[in-house]
Amino acid sequence: MDLHPLQVRHRRVAEALASRSLDALAVSNLANIRYLTGFNGTAGLLLVTPARLYLIVDFRYSAAVLGLIREQMAPPALVHVPLEASTGYDRRFAEFVAERRRGAAPGSSASDDGPPLRRVGFEASHVPVARWRLWQTRLSDAGAGDVELVETDRVVEAARARKDAREVGLLREGARLLSGVARDVLEEVVRSGRTELEIAAEIDWRLKRAGFEKPAFDTIVASGPNSALPHARPTPRRVGEGDLVVLDFGGVHDGYCVDLTRTVAVGTVPAECRRIYEAVLEAQRAAIAAAGRDRVETGEVDEAARDTLRRHGLDRVFGHGTGHGLGLDIHEAPRLGQRSEESPGKDLLEPGMVFTIEPGAYVEGLGGVRIEDDLLRTEAGCDVLTDVPREWRAIPA
Amino acid sequence: MDLHPLQVRHRRVAEALASRSLDALAVSNLANIRYLTGFNGTAGLLLVTPARLYLIVDFRYSAAVLGLIREQMAPPALVHVPLEASTGYDRRFAEFVAERRRGAAPGSSASDDGPPLRRVGFEASHVPVARWRLWQTRLSDAGAGDVELVETDRVVEAARARKDAREVGLLREGARLLSGVARDVLEEVVRSGRTELEIAAEIDWRLKRAGFEKPAFDTIVASGPNSALPHARPTPRRVGEGDLVVLDFGGVHDGYCVDLTRTVAVGTVPAECRRIYEAVLEAQRAAIAAAGRDRVETGEVDEAARDTLRRHGLDRVFGHGTGHGLGLDIHEAPRLGQRSEESPGKDLLEPGMVFTIEPGAYVEGLGGVRIEDDLLRTEAGCDVLTDVPREWRAIPA
Repeated sequence: MDLHPLQVRHRRVAEALASRSLDALAVSNLANIRYLTGFNGTAGLLLVTPARLYLIVDFRYSAAVLGLIREQMAPPALVHVPLEASTGYDRRFAEFVAERRRGAAPGSSASDDGPPLRRVGFEASHVPVARWRLWQTRLSDAGAGDVELVETDRVVEAARARKDAREVGLLREGARLLSGVARDVLEEVVRSGRTELEIAAEIDWRLKRAGFEKPAFDTIVASGPNSALPHARPTPRRVGEGDLVVLDFGGVHDGYCVDLTRTVAVGTVPAECRRIYEAVLEAQRAAIAAAGRDRVETGEVDEAARDTLRRHGLDRVFGHGTGHGLGLDIHEAPRLGQRSEESPGKDLLEPGMVFTIEPGAYVEGLGGVRIEDDLLRTEAGCDVLTDVPREWRAIPA
Repeated sequence: MDLHPLQVRHRRVAEALASRSLDALAVSNLANIRYLTGFNGTAGLLLVTPARLYLIVDFRYSAAVLGLIREQMAPPALVHVPLEASTGYDRRFAEFVAERRRGAAPGSSASDDGPPLRRVGFEASHVPVARWRLWQTRLSDAGAGDVELVETDRVVEAARARKDAREVGLLREGARLLSGVARDVLEEVVRSGRTELEIAAEIDWRLKRAGFEKPAFDTIVASGPNSALPHARPTPRRVGEGDLVVLDFGGVHDGYCVDLTRTVAVGTVPAECRRIYEAVLEAQRAAIAAAGRDRVETGEVDEAARDTLRRHGLDRVFGHGTGHGLGLDIHEAPRLGQRSEESPGKDLLEPGMVFTIEPGAYVEGLGGVRIEDDLLRTEAGCDVLTDVPREWRAIPA
């Protein structure tokens, strides 16, 4: 019998528990909870043991969790742990751990739920210091002060970096939908005389009309001098003659984020703008080629883009990384950034990874260019999932 | 001379530093950074001393910060601390603290920047355990291992709870805009035969058209059985005869969040739905009246709603709190929830606080009702900022 797809994910976490000598992992990051359980709420706390997934949710979400279980969308090992409104997640968590800790009393036999809990991992990149302190206090209050809370680093995120078949299908479909929106936006929405805000509002509306749940992030429409700000917000500025316009937007499709950027010219722009555009496009092509190479490191993909821009004298105005992973979060592993002491970029791109390639160049007073597509790393190379012409495009002023 | 409005906020933090014997506070929460500096990016780290606000930002945001300083929108004490792309926020932070720590060498005199740093507070509710560990390591690496990182709890959030005149103006205007959108939505958008998703997409588009930067949260349109889920997401379900429809949406106006809910009936609904509606409306009126009383505790406002629903036998199906503060975050202080050991609800409502009142009742299989408005606590009582009819409304099936 085939495993439930979420059972495979549970197994990966169980292996991570074994390799760290942990009895359980407390998962508080909501995207990680969704990945492991299918539950998609704004609050919840998950305790993963090798045998079970205990999902603590409050009143608002009990019906949703019971529905997931009934419709077999939750993994078979999921156990719903309801929470009284007045208790709070942290106390319920501590009491639950303490109950399972007491299972360890001398002479008691391990239940179906597995051995009693002594070493409980938690997500040190997500749990604030204050919550960690509170958990320690609450565990003591509950008579489980000897439970050891162990810091773990991106256990679930590591599993999430390689997408399974269902995730690849969702991301592929998302990229297809986004490409359709982008082609229409370039044809019909970006026009001289419209404000950045108007264009952004229409992009967001078209994302929803295409079937996206919502924009994956705040849509960027940055024109003229604003285009030189890589993280500009739309303003009341009207697009007009001589502008470069950077359009960066994405959508969430059944939980999964896709992301795309195109830059267009309005009327006649300085020749230097065109030169920058072609350099960025060349950098993007170089990075895409690198991403398809055998046993390529993430840092090499960034270098491919950065070296190209350096040859054009533009590396100093490329201030961000070449790309980022896509999935339940708009920014997740892998990171395709500049190598540094803190991030040496030595990880290999692995089959199933989905990520952006988005070099840019930003010249104050002149304008900016960014070109971004979404890619899937395969065994053989890379598939570009988005499909929107990348060639220089000028619209009438 | 009048103080710059942000100077007043800086002073409040400086007072908190003095009362905790801290030399500085590291502010990592982005809403808190925005509150203190006006800077509105997706990354940044702020070090507040009694004399200065040192804002570390990377390449992408340097131009934005220099612009704030140039246009005197930043507080006069703001110092821009640029960050090389390859350094990373945490190392730059540690190196900066270390530089300021070395100012403490014997014989050196305190500079204009104030005394050297020894005790540095940080936001324990926001800084993950892993980042806190990294800061400790980086401080050691930078030769400042003797700097003490001190956990603080909601220093800036406490200041944010009482809005100043500019903030009240923005929230008042936001509530006015939102009320206009809501009246139009109830008249023109909610129609039998439309799907929840279509209605939600049109609400979001109208929020933007009205001038909001974006929706303040994922718009809720929950019809029929879905209305019994207090945190439903819009689905392809078509609104039709006999449904209750809960519409909960909000917008961000110049950074500040407003939030409103109405529930409408479609065609003829069971008499029990109408009874629930009137009970929730009575509960909301009771809570609004309580919120205007002299020296009222947050827990008393919740009790006013909860006691009303209890008299109608509906307290068990009111699973959330009565309200929450509004501001740069959609949920902030004050919390108007059910009293519990962890949250005794003993804080007083204070003039300048802006918050929602939103009781609800959710009956599985029948439907749900929620009615939500935004209020400003004043010296004399309460102003209801939103203005949309609250009476029972049925639209044609």
